[in-house]
Amino acid sequence: MTGAPGARRRGRPPRAESADTRDRILAAAREEFSERGYEKTSVRGVAKAAGVDPALVHHYFGTKEQVFEEAVAVAFAPALDAPEAVAAGPLDGVGERLARFIFGVWENPATRAPLLAIVRSAVTNDTAAAVFRRLVAGQLLRRIAVQLDLPDAELRAELAAAQLVGAAMMRYVIKLEPLASADLEQIVARLAPVVQHHLTAP
Amino acid sequence: MTGAPGARRRGRPPRAESADTRDRILAAAREEFSERGYEKTSVRGVAKAAGVDPALVHHYFGTKEQVFEEAVAVAFAPALDAPEAVAAGPLDGVGERLARFIFGVWENPATRAPLLAIVRSAVTNDTAAAVFRRLVAGQLLRRIAVQLDLPDAELRAELAAAQLVGAAMMRYVIKLEPLASADLEQIVARLAPVVQHHLTAP
Repeated sequence: MTGAPGARRRGRPPRAESADTRDRILAAAREEFSERGYEKTSVRGVAKAAGVDPALVHHYFGTKEQVFEEAVAVAFAPALDAPEAVAAGPLDGVGERLARFIFGVWENPATRAPLLAIVRSAVTNDTAAAVFRRLVAGQLLRRIAVQLDLPDAELRAELAAAQLVGAAMMRYVIKLEPLASADLEQIVARLAPVVQHHLTAP
Repeated sequence: MTGAPGARRRGRPPRAESADTRDRILAAAREEFSERGYEKTSVRGVAKAAGVDPALVHHYFGTKEQVFEEAVAVAFAPALDAPEAVAAGPLDGVGERLARFIFGVWENPATRAPLLAIVRSAVTNDTAAAVFRRLVAGQLLRRIAVQLDLPDAELRAELAAAQLVGAAMMRYVIKLEPLASADLEQIVARLAPVVQHHLTAP
């Protein structure tokens, strides 16, 4: 990570500085997208928040859509272990494992905030929806579907995800009662058989 | 839309004109909220779209939140027959009746567009979320819950709604495949047992 010879004023920055700057831009981008959503965030705003020139944002990431995709991938990382939760035991317990895993991610404010920001952007902006679609379909649902070995495995995974994301929206965003104040164990107990049904019922 | 016997500059308009103007403002408000979402819509913008003075919008509806609530109630009207769909047959067929009814509303572009606008606003703005919550909880879910006569009836209705709204978001907004192109009958067949489970399983 170090050892690049410094002193150049133009061209690529040395490696250590490069990784550092890239991380700083990415952190600023996550913050901006979280707070403002996709539409109101600009490359210029991200650059300003990171304390760099907008050209550097383009240099490291490309377009606003590409910055968003990288920021989303980082924010989404905790949820991307869901396929491992699916694989971590027998298929007849998959409903409970998946419901517990996903609501564990939602219940933790540190992992919830960036996920909420993604869902909000995806629901209100077509470009953000496309990024969400690629990520959720490609890196999450398809990796769950291949473990099912059933017809319509992808449709099954999507409907299970729709239940889990829908319940999270109602609880954490719309704050519908009694769901918003319900005990997490009660929610997992109610969602587990339904997720199980989607994923494995004949 | 013409024929108002003008001339008066102050005071209440006569009744026919009053109903007409109110409807025109409400139609403009629905349009504005649909296109721009809650945050970007202003009373001034609604007034301009309706061709009236902003004071008239305040006169008929009050605050922006109150205009939104009325516009949402109109847009939401088709979905508010869901409790009747629940009541229209024996409880052991309620899952299919409700899934079919709700997806019928979503599948029709004329009723889908205003619903989408509401959900988008509710997910991104707290005031819009509160309006959505009052309407969905008070006029929809509670009227379904009372028919169930089971413990946790409201939580059950909320989780069933979460499944149906979540699946609609994935299909019509995020456009996840294969869900986005799936046959409506296939979706109803997959959602019916799950909604049934939420509403009536012991």
